[in-house]
Amino acid sequence: MSDRLIAVYEVPGPAAEAEKTARAIAFEETVEVPFDFPLPSRIREEIVGRVGALTPAGEKFRVEISFPAALAGGRVGALLNLVFGNASIWPGVRLVDIHFPESFLSAFSGPNFGVAGFRGLLGVHGRPLLATALKPMGSTEAELAGAAAAFARGGGDIVKDDQNIVDPSFAAFRSRVSRIAEAVSQTKCLYFPHLSGPQEELEDRLRFILSLGLKGVLICPAIVGLDAMRALASKRKAVFMAHPAFSGAFYAERSHGIEHSLYLGTLMRLAGADITVFPNSGGRFAFTPGECRAIAERGRAPLGRLAPIFPAPGGGMTLDSTAAMAQDFGPDAIWLVGGRLLMHPGGPEAGARAFREKMPA
Amino acid sequence: MSDRLIAVYEVPGPAAEAEKTARAIAFEETVEVPFDFPLPSRIREEIVGRVGALTPAGEKFRVEISFPAALAGGRVGALLNLVFGNASIWPGVRLVDIHFPESFLSAFSGPNFGVAGFRGLLGVHGRPLLATALKPMGSTEAELAGAAAAFARGGGDIVKDDQNIVDPSFAAFRSRVSRIAEAVSQTKCLYFPHLSGPQEELEDRLRFILSLGLKGVLICPAIVGLDAMRALASKRKAVFMAHPAFSGAFYAERSHGIEHSLYLGTLMRLAGADITVFPNSGGRFAFTPGECRAIAERGRAPLGRLAPIFPAPGGGMTLDSTAAMAQDFGPDAIWLVGGRLLMHPGGPEAGARAFREKMPA
Repeated sequence: MSDRLIAVYEVPGPAAEAEKTARAIAFEETVEVPFDFPLPSRIREEIVGRVGALTPAGEKFRVEISFPAALAGGRVGALLNLVFGNASIWPGVRLVDIHFPESFLSAFSGPNFGVAGFRGLLGVHGRPLLATALKPMGSTEAELAGAAAAFARGGGDIVKDDQNIVDPSFAAFRSRVSRIAEAVSQTKCLYFPHLSGPQEELEDRLRFILSLGLKGVLICPAIVGLDAMRALASKRKAVFMAHPAFSGAFYAERSHGIEHSLYLGTLMRLAGADITVFPNSGGRFAFTPGECRAIAERGRAPLGRLAPIFPAPGGGMTLDSTAAMAQDFGPDAIWLVGGRLLMHPGGPEAGARAFREKMPA
Repeated sequence: MSDRLIAVYEVPGPAAEAEKTARAIAFEETVEVPFDFPLPSRIREEIVGRVGALTPAGEKFRVEISFPAALAGGRVGALLNLVFGNASIWPGVRLVDIHFPESFLSAFSGPNFGVAGFRGLLGVHGRPLLATALKPMGSTEAELAGAAAAFARGGGDIVKDDQNIVDPSFAAFRSRVSRIAEAVSQTKCLYFPHLSGPQEELEDRLRFILSLGLKGVLICPAIVGLDAMRALASKRKAVFMAHPAFSGAFYAERSHGIEHSLYLGTLMRLAGADITVFPNSGGRFAFTPGECRAIAERGRAPLGRLAPIFPAPGGGMTLDSTAAMAQDFGPDAIWLVGGRLLMHPGGPEAGARAFREKMPA
């Protein structure tokens, strides 16, 4: 059993129907042939997924299906295909957990920094970190650079590009990023530009970012590909802050897809994120407090030799949200506050200071 | 208006709620700040999405939101971020259409071959094409090569790897693919290996595939990234057959996500697919006949200078499905038949022949 990978699904009932769906997943994700296909016994026994016991889970049933870990090939892409390739197309099927054997995890180096490494880089210990996003889209370079500098003066730790910011060319990207980098260069605040653009340019852009002395990037793995993030992270020792843009369809409706914390916690960490951004409960999106805490928990639960990562709850946080953030996520979290910090009556500097004051010492 | 991009969403009612959601999308996908943020009028007027009229659509409301096309930057990634970045995280929001201005489309070269180019390559005109998948996973190289050769002898046009097949290494991939390529090399049947593996190896694997004289690949864009497919297709003149693995969460539940035909038709074509594989109605998945026809229609509808592409309905097709496939998709379609063809009592050769006989002349 030790080198089997176990995927856990919730599927619709009643029990007989759930059993049938589970068996269909076990076939579909491996041999992908009709049940009556004349499979050699070697393949039937060694390749087809094995369906475990069904247990009721609310109105659905939870079932474990185990696969030989070799079928995921130590690769992000093969893993996604194996556990949720065609199964993603069945309404009502939700992937809620994956148990990885050591033989699978050992192929991954995971986050470059993780919680301890990133704290060492920043030199900040024992309190949550404060991050903001440069916005709104349409602002000039000078406006963005000014906001970044003010946030840094106010004690902010990380300023990232808003993922919506688009530079019309690599040259425009270089110009904008250089200007903002310079604006925070004499401070302890780190600037993470959004690593995006045509796939052909991602490596060059990352190299350029690091050449400025910057330490990390914001990236949208659902857009560039989870394995693309892993490949970039394995090539360059940068901090990767993963943003959930375009990934909501996987988890936002609980009836199907992939459990929030599995996608935003475990899979991001496996694919090399040091920080996982997600919309906190009480903000503009509909995550529950429990779903958010589970993301943080999966970010730090034992996972082979992969370092724990930072949860970065955001998406509409206000000064009134800080007590709950401190309570829900503890010190090893990044409070990501955009709009409400930038629009503080005293500007981003006073905004940063106001949020820093809310942090437990 | 001519260089605005119009995204069409279905959002939950009642009307006042739908209006609020539409306005939230227009903000969230651009400036991403609270409504009361002191936006400069320049940004409020030129950057924030513009909400059009609401029209009832069943129990929901349909609304057009237009954005400056420059915000999508002529890039797949920026487009996905703009039209469904954070909006993907709101339950109940479904992206159902996108109207692209010429200024956006002109940045894309689209499919390398498309329908006409691929027919020229194959030398087959006036009838649907017949494709099969090499499976089951766990078969030996010799078994897969034997099935490919038999399918070719029976008159099959395209034999592709099953997307589940995993090679433990690049060396194993080279060995397996070479063997299958050789098995069909003296026939008119084309072999499309699955282009997968670690992101760092995709280009090398594609180069290797083409070095064998093969003309195309199977690829899973939801796994490797839509823009990764586009980049590969723009670098190498291969045929790209896009497989929907891992993308089902986007469309399988109609309550949210992205409309089937927009994701599997338009977006695949924009990202360079020549062929889009999807689970046909009546098979193992729950697509309706109308959803499937719409995929084919969006694959051939005018889209700048982008060539029309082939729909490849599959996923549980039998000899009894052929009349409906002929009716629904006409001659410019690829019938993708896996299990039922391979398990024909006379083997894959007789299986191919049986399906070819069902094709309109």
